[in-house]
Amino acid sequence: MRTRVTELFGIEYPIFAFSHCRDVVAAVSRAGGMGVLGALYFTPEELELELKWIDEHVGGKPYGVDVVMPAKYEGADLGDATEMLSKLQGMIPDRHKRFVEDLLAEHGVEPLSEEGAGKALLGWTDATARPQVEVALKHPIALLANALGPPPADVVVQAHEHGVKVAGLASNARHARKQVEVGVDIIVAQGTEAGGHTGDVSTMVLIPEVVDAVGEETMVLAAGGIGRGRQMAAGMALGADGVWTGSIWLTVDEADTPEKARGKLLDATSRDTVRSRSWTGKPARLLKTPWTDAWESEKSPGTLPMPMQFMLISDALRRIGRSGDGELATFPVGQIVGSMNQVKPAAQVVYDLIEEYVESLERLNTLTED
Amino acid sequence: MRTRVTELFGIEYPIFAFSHCRDVVAAVSRAGGMGVLGALYFTPEELELELKWIDEHVGGKPYGVDVVMPAKYEGADLGDATEMLSKLQGMIPDRHKRFVEDLLAEHGVEPLSEEGAGKALLGWTDATARPQVEVALKHPIALLANALGPPPADVVVQAHEHGVKVAGLASNARHARKQVEVGVDIIVAQGTEAGGHTGDVSTMVLIPEVVDAVGEETMVLAAGGIGRGRQMAAGMALGADGVWTGSIWLTVDEADTPEKARGKLLDATSRDTVRSRSWTGKPARLLKTPWTDAWESEKSPGTLPMPMQFMLISDALRRIGRSGDGELATFPVGQIVGSMNQVKPAAQVVYDLIEEYVESLERLNTLTED
Repeated sequence: MRTRVTELFGIEYPIFAFSHCRDVVAAVSRAGGMGVLGALYFTPEELELELKWIDEHVGGKPYGVDVVMPAKYEGADLGDATEMLSKLQGMIPDRHKRFVEDLLAEHGVEPLSEEGAGKALLGWTDATARPQVEVALKHPIALLANALGPPPADVVVQAHEHGVKVAGLASNARHARKQVEVGVDIIVAQGTEAGGHTGDVSTMVLIPEVVDAVGEETMVLAAGGIGRGRQMAAGMALGADGVWTGSIWLTVDEADTPEKARGKLLDATSRDTVRSRSWTGKPARLLKTPWTDAWESEKSPGTLPMPMQFMLISDALRRIGRSGDGELATFPVGQIVGSMNQVKPAAQVVYDLIEEYVESLERLNTLTED
Repeated sequence: MRTRVTELFGIEYPIFAFSHCRDVVAAVSRAGGMGVLGALYFTPEELELELKWIDEHVGGKPYGVDVVMPAKYEGADLGDATEMLSKLQGMIPDRHKRFVEDLLAEHGVEPLSEEGAGKALLGWTDATARPQVEVALKHPIALLANALGPPPADVVVQAHEHGVKVAGLASNARHARKQVEVGVDIIVAQGTEAGGHTGDVSTMVLIPEVVDAVGEETMVLAAGGIGRGRQMAAGMALGADGVWTGSIWLTVDEADTPEKARGKLLDATSRDTVRSRSWTGKPARLLKTPWTDAWESEKSPGTLPMPMQFMLISDALRRIGRSGDGELATFPVGQIVGSMNQVKPAAQVVYDLIEEYVESLERLNTLTED
């Protein structure tokens, strides 16, 4: 296939694969797509190790890194990262802490301790994401993506100085235009059916709107609900230059997804997700479990703004992950989870996408044959 | 274009146009698509007149009728239509009536009177929809569609005896399979972005799921978010045999949409809709206005089950329509409303869909050229 993004990056297929797992990133890039490592959960030191590993295993193919620099969050004016974290920590209400403790106790998960709190917050703010960008730009990455709103203009400049293209996720046309204004090269237009942070407009409606809004110059990737070749063909028919996928890599062979979570994902239907603020304080699509239900229940104290919600729950999520009880465990995942029923190598997922894409296009062509 | 549905109905384009307006239905059928008249708001006598008019103006082209026979509703066991209506009327809590009256008063809309209550309920139940089916089958209709769940099996048999094909709207794969079991010929797989009653799975995810679930024998139309040729191409790429559209016909020249409502639709963006129970008691996508907001507010008494919610509000909706204040006025409409920015003749909308469809397909073909 040849589109503007395959030409730009010298890749074989316009398939971008977001994953927190370095093995998946390297496997997709080697298979002809483009792996993009989610840096969110790594300290700068950890990220350095991950990227070094990818450099050694990606066979010289291009790959990207995804950071989270939200345009708006609480505490943006509270000083440097350490200071901000400690101040925000103090602002978390006891009522919310009690709600989380009670919920875990109800499900037999051991109570929260203070140890390690805030660690998982690392990538959720501008202040904490910048060191990740510094690390990333020291590696031969081809793409720097920002997951929430337009990246700061100076980060775009810095990336461009390193010859790195910048992508930004947008869930509506207005945000997409803002990203173009700060110099973003590629818009990832992400529909509400996507996993993780997501807006309310569906991929079907969003892609043509964004394509028309950003104009000829800017490339657009379609995201949200794309896990099969027919969906890739639909995304391209809507006007995109390529597709951005995430959820489907959670259940591939190479993924480091915990066994319990993987089993839940394989079993889930497309109706088993919910858009919830219970993960980070901003709406994100998650696997619907007693965790997401509890935050919607009458007992719920309501969620806190980003980044405090994740600070509140990060320990709890780790403890739930470690506990024998998989019931509470949730996961950012899109509605495509209903089609994730089989564990396959990442490369096979790439080839299956392309095979079904070609079949879909052949069928379309027969419909208009004379 | 040639697909299984164009062959089946002898139509030129696999474009189905749902509308409550006979002029739109006739215009789309004459332009080579298939108009489908929503019978919901008509008494059997009124429906007879509408269909007679269409017969005289459709130029011998095929058209369809859409009724609402919900699989589940309150009062299904309360006797015949008149008896049921009067019993249900008595079950509407005073608190809910007061909430509606207060809301109207707040916006300067004159208070509710008792006159005419329940009239607009006509098509919302099996008991009230059957007389509509009787009327419809006396006309040369090509298609009978049911909007909520599988139609009763005997209605399917009756339609088939008249040589009429039956379509059923489904918002998930399990419901689609149920419809096939009762003999439905065509599944309208409708994503969450659609206007009116709608499920939670997006069109992008839903269509391949339904196509795979119902098997080779059953035709599938893609619905939800489809208003432009690129979206039609996407729907077909997802595996559909045609597309089902609704919202886009609200703003065509021929539509009898009240001026105030039309203006609001032309101005709205794709983010200005909301899935709400405030219209019928079942989740339906509506234009977001102070009406839908009020039912979500703290003062809201909560919505009533179908069909009582619509019985409660039908007079209010008429009064809002007549009043000078367009602020409360809402309308079932999908997220595609963001692309409805221009008033055009219905036939032009059909031709524009096809033109952009062909462009989209040509672009797809250049991407895989050797």
